[in-house]
Amino acid sequence: MKNTFGNSVSLTLFGESHGEYTGAVIDGLAPGITVDEKYIANRLSLRRPSGKTGTKRIEKDNFRIISGVFRGKTTGTPLCVIIPNENVKSEDYARESIIPRPGHADYTANCKYHGFEDYRGSGHFSGRLTAPLVAAGAIMQYALENKGIYIGTHIARCAKINDRPFKNINEDIKTLGKKKFAVLDEAKSKKMQEAIILAAKDGDSVGGILETAVTGIPAGTGEPWFDTMESMLSHALFSIPAVKGVQFGNAFKNVDLPGSKYNDEFAVSAGSIITRTNHNGGINGGITNGMPVIFSCAVKPTPSIFKQQNSVDLTEMENTVIQTSGRHDPAVIHRARAVVDAVTALVICDMLALRYGTDFLGE
Amino acid sequence: MKNTFGNSVSLTLFGESHGEYTGAVIDGLAPGITVDEKYIANRLSLRRPSGKTGTKRIEKDNFRIISGVFRGKTTGTPLCVIIPNENVKSEDYARESIIPRPGHADYTANCKYHGFEDYRGSGHFSGRLTAPLVAAGAIMQYALENKGIYIGTHIARCAKINDRPFKNINEDIKTLGKKKFAVLDEAKSKKMQEAIILAAKDGDSVGGILETAVTGIPAGTGEPWFDTMESMLSHALFSIPAVKGVQFGNAFKNVDLPGSKYNDEFAVSAGSIITRTNHNGGINGGITNGMPVIFSCAVKPTPSIFKQQNSVDLTEMENTVIQTSGRHDPAVIHRARAVVDAVTALVICDMLALRYGTDFLGE
Amino acid sequence: MKNTFGNSVSLTLFGESHGEYTGAVIDGLAPGITVDEKYIANRLSLRRPSGKTGTKRIEKDNFRIISGVFRGKTTGTPLCVIIPNENVKSEDYARESIIPRPGHADYTANCKYHGFEDYRGSGHFSGRLTAPLVAAGAIMQYALENKGIYIGTHIARCAKINDRPFKNINEDIKTLGKKKFAVLDEAKSKKMQEAIILAAKDGDSVGGILETAVTGIPAGTGEPWFDTMESMLSHALFSIPAVKGVQFGNAFKNVDLPGSKYNDEFAVSAGSIITRTNHNGGINGGITNGMPVIFSCAVKPTPSIFKQQNSVDLTEMENTVIQTSGRHDPAVIHRARAVVDAVTALVICDMLALRYGTDFLGE
Amino acid sequence: MKNTFGNSVSLTLFGESHGEYTGAVIDGLAPGITVDEKYIANRLSLRRPSGKTGTKRIEKDNFRIISGVFRGKTTGTPLCVIIPNENVKSEDYARESIIPRPGHADYTANCKYHGFEDYRGSGHFSGRLTAPLVAAGAIMQYALENKGIYIGTHIARCAKINDRPFKNINEDIKTLGKKKFAVLDEAKSKKMQEAIILAAKDGDSVGGILETAVTGIPAGTGEPWFDTMESMLSHALFSIPAVKGVQFGNAFKNVDLPGSKYNDEFAVSAGSIITRTNHNGGINGGITNGMPVIFSCAVKPTPSIFKQQNSVDLTEMENTVIQTSGRHDPAVIHRARAVVDAVTALVICDMLALRYGTDFLGE
Repeated sequence: MKNTFGNSVSLTLFGESHGEYTGAVIDGLAPGITVDEKYIANRLSLRRPSGKTGTKRIEKDNFRIISGVFRGKTTGTPLCVIIPNENVKSEDYARESIIPRPGHADYTANCKYHGFEDYRGSGHFSGRLTAPLVAAGAIMQYALENKGIYIGTHIARCAKINDRPFKNINEDIKTLGKKKFAVLDEAKSKKMQEAIILAAKDGDSVGGILETAVTGIPAGTGEPWFDTMESMLSHALFSIPAVKGVQFGNAFKNVDLPGSKYNDEFAVSAGSIITRTNHNGGINGGITNGMPVIFSCAVKPTPSIFKQQNSVDLTEMENTVIQTSGRHDPAVIHRARAVVDAVTALVICDMLALRYGTDFLGE
Repeated sequence: MKNTFGNSVSLTLFGESHGEYTGAVIDGLAPGITVDEKYIANRLSLRRPSGKTGTKRIEKDNFRIISGVFRGKTTGTPLCVIIPNENVKSEDYARESIIPRPGHADYTANCKYHGFEDYRGSGHFSGRLTAPLVAAGAIMQYALENKGIYIGTHIARCAKINDRPFKNINEDIKTLGKKKFAVLDEAKSKKMQEAIILAAKDGDSVGGILETAVTGIPAGTGEPWFDTMESMLSHALFSIPAVKGVQFGNAFKNVDLPGSKYNDEFAVSAGSIITRTNHNGGINGGITNGMPVIFSCAVKPTPSIFKQQNSVDLTEMENTVIQTSGRHDPAVIHRARAVVDAVTALVICDMLALRYGTDFLGE
Repeated sequence: MKNTFGNSVSLTLFGESHGEYTGAVIDGLAPGITVDEKYIANRLSLRRPSGKTGTKRIEKDNFRIISGVFRGKTTGTPLCVIIPNENVKSEDYARESIIPRPGHADYTANCKYHGFEDYRGSGHFSGRLTAPLVAAGAIMQYALENKGIYIGTHIARCAKINDRPFKNINEDIKTLGKKKFAVLDEAKSKKMQEAIILAAKDGDSVGGILETAVTGIPAGTGEPWFDTMESMLSHALFSIPAVKGVQFGNAFKNVDLPGSKYNDEFAVSAGSIITRTNHNGGINGGITNGMPVIFSCAVKPTPSIFKQQNSVDLTEMENTVIQTSGRHDPAVIHRARAVVDAVTALVICDMLALRYGTDFLGE
Repeated sequence: MKNTFGNSVSLTLFGESHGEYTGAVIDGLAPGITVDEKYIANRLSLRRPSGKTGTKRIEKDNFRIISGVFRGKTTGTPLCVIIPNENVKSEDYARESIIPRPGHADYTANCKYHGFEDYRGSGHFSGRLTAPLVAAGAIMQYALENKGIYIGTHIARCAKINDRPFKNINEDIKTLGKKKFAVLDEAKSKKMQEAIILAAKDGDSVGGILETAVTGIPAGTGEPWFDTMESMLSHALFSIPAVKGVQFGNAFKNVDLPGSKYNDEFAVSAGSIITRTNHNGGINGGITNGMPVIFSCAVKPTPSIFKQQNSVDLTEMENTVIQTSGRHDPAVIHRARAVVDAVTALVICDMLALRYGTDFLGE
């Protein structure tokens, strides 16, 4: 279904970097969900670049909800949110030659769309499209919080610097909701930001790892085959530009453990079933077990750099070099965390609506 | 869509470990694809346990294609393959108490299906269901090979031992197709197998990392949002029991690189566009760039071990211990590789049929 | 999704007329639904030809449920039912020439599948595939009855003879469940059967109109756009071979009424909202209003006749004639009613599961 | 998928009658389709009310394409078209009592959305939403015409008056494209319009039957089960407000024919296969046979009338009467024809893209 994700609750994304609007349509949301515009604005602010670690193209993200909300609550019919592209420098000229930027979608878009793609500012592939995604996700994240389900993401690693792991998860999530640069350990946060600024000075960029925790998902959510909780989350997460890896519960490292250590033993705790460790990231057999769902995303360094790179001239089919300039992020990882939260909210809403029906998230 | 995956080409999986049959229905396959039963049998043999590294439950996998094939070729209508469960030890007794095995789906299945699940031998969650998946995948893999698209998976790491990386990929893939234990470096293969036997003796199990390469996918395949090539592959891969992580091009390690190193620069080579490195695993912006698609899966150690473990009695809601016995694998990674190849074939067929139409894979 | 229908509850159909089995997979059924094999056998008997009004190919329909049921109840995982093709006269010869039968799918199948189709006995297009559809539908119909939702279909018109309309709908539905030839007025039933026998003697066939009533669907089920209750029902109904028209509440005749007569006025009755007439067939704006859902299907005369007809030789691309012989139905309308009930049950289950969640139909 | 229709090409609809915009997103359109804004404007004008036969709420339909088009051609990424609701009389008051209008969705929307629905001017159920549907459909209809596929709809019956049937179909389609009141026989057109005006004077409304022809669809398009051409068309058509019946090739009348008359015999004509009659409406076994696809829709009389009607007060749960006033159509059938054409174009594009791939409709 291409630019749509989800079954019971679905989201359709549209727009280009230099178009009039980017936008998203959410369908299947329960009627009667409160839509808190301040909450949305805050989530958008967490995605927006700021200070020295971000691009100089800063947009106000004046989102407008043009359908599906009536008197502050969802109606149950499709909700469309649009965000104008306010800060567009017009570049509506014909390309004399097509020299794709390494690491970007320029070349693959050209293969797929045969030159008809809107190539300006990466077009439909632009990170700009994550703005309506975050706005839409915020509506769902707010609804989930009302049901006791919390989502939070921190920068677990950036420029080889590690943040501390999650401790008291719900408290950590609350803290992260207020941080523009989502690192739990303030000393590490400072170091990471310095490393980003250093990379920027060098015309280079850095990547890292985002770690996400979700608490409060009822045990028993997910499907055994194909629509496992891991499958649905990874499907959505790999749509985020720059995400190149997804693991649950630190899997790539922990596969070195023997089964006797990796297995999460059960215990009764305060009348509930818990596991004594959480190497499986809260999911067994594709289905949640009631423990926090924990996963992390590998976020590649921003492909936009200011160093000369080898490329090709697609028109002439010959080698050449490319030197980009303009407004770019030396890192996107601190902005991507808001996008990770948004798509996670979408997946959880979809899975819960499938299980409990279309009214579940309403009042 | 739960137990169905795919849009233009789709697969539906059914069956339980102790039922009469497991099976799969493939829909959307082009008419006129040759169905080579020897090829299917070989792929099934690569999945089947053998020797000292596997479970003692060995099935002949006498698959039968009961629809969709006429005179050795696909008709274009749904192809159903079923495999009898021949070696079932009957355990059709009522559970007196439910004590879920750590790391297994026993507990989550109980939460989801309220006790109606067929719990015998993990029921619908059993690795047995990967047999029809491999049989179905083999039909698609064969069709892809006829179009010059090759898929191969090796055990890149097992019990902390690393295989050598892919070198000449198409040749390596050919080699892997003949190996029961899919390791490229024979010395490492021996060491891994020894480690598995050692773990088995200790009543324990090991995991590892599978690395897959796909060559020959035309550049321009995949969608920018939601149905990116990474999204579709990871969706299918995370359905495989024990897969807990998916990364493209060694992402979790390479996020430490600066953008100037991570970016894959372009070059013209023999009239084609290639990239000089392949950190992006053959995919930019969710769309293939014509380079080999490279990804790896973290495969957790088999949860079935013979050590006593802490668990809970769900009926009494109290702590207890569990000591499993019977037929089990000390490792599944060497068998899982055939499953990884199968679901990869499914995803590629689906994406190509979407792009080129339903006749694409036929003759 | 081709041979699959449904979102929250879905059904996949496979098989060919002369293959080993036909079958269906239902996915998304709630765990804990009682599977009553006698009920299924009865529904299959209503579809089976009998006496002088049906084909001489009579099969026992020895259905087998090979997955998804454990101790007489659904597990919540995919349920696969297969039915062997017992009475197959082998015709596995190469066609020397392809002369499509008028009104059949021979020609269109050839256009679509390029000659790879299994043409024997109409292959995948055969009415035989409605057997597993009826078996699967019976499981869902039984579950719906346990929730107070009843489905019944009568032959409203056949060979220009009209049955009486529904009166006491639930009672009529009960009566129809016991009738092999589903006509409410016995005198009309006799006349219709005579007309069918007469047509058979003449080597000809007859069609008619099936009218269906569904009671007990909660008001508020259906979607405003695209997945309206009418859309979902008609989508499924038009899959049934020979159905060429679907109308809700006698629409094709009643469009002649003025709005003041067509509108169904509301009233309060015993604490519930009812409508005083039911021209809208229980659906407003695509959503059920709590009144019986009433629709009818135009069923074309069976295309299999024993008269010589004009056709073409596709190999030679020249005009020719065709004279068919063998086992055929002079009418299928009395058998199709069981298929209409089955797909109706599927649609209702799917829509209710979407609305109320995946556990809704269970115990 | 609720407010989304289609698989390979899909359309998502959003908006409410009194919201800021209504809109549609088309996804899966080939890159390189010319977007002719005049053509779109013309199709919108055919849907717009005018003269004495329509509502007095006339909107300019100033559609804006805000994504997916670059330099006059589709990019291949989602195309979003929005239309402002310009002529909205604000009614943003709390309902003191809820008295549903007979024949409308007021009551069912209330059952489904629990009072959170935007009830103003029928909200999401309003005929206003057909404006973006027509705009989006126009883009697809234009693309189809470039491939030699033509769609046209006439009012076959209105207020008991019959138009002449299609004769030279392609010529008739061309004629209809220019007519605001789509009747082929001018004398009948005049009579129908007089009948509509008469009904309006009486505060009443009329309905009728729309007949549609589609020429040029390649033989072999459609699926045998569930996604038959009839299923897909009817699914989309029944989404149109007021459509209560769909038949192919005049089925409800022709079921009275014997099979020997109903069957469409084949012939070779100018090197192609044709049928000598077309009772099957160009479809056999759910798949097109190359003949014109012919179907008709029963369009109920507009439920908005100016006569007093019985209804209920939902708050008090007691009988009452309702007398509506304001802007309304005494008939919608002449406007609905543009909507029928639009959804038909959507279905055909979707089915062709599935068959021939995502580039098929491009240049």
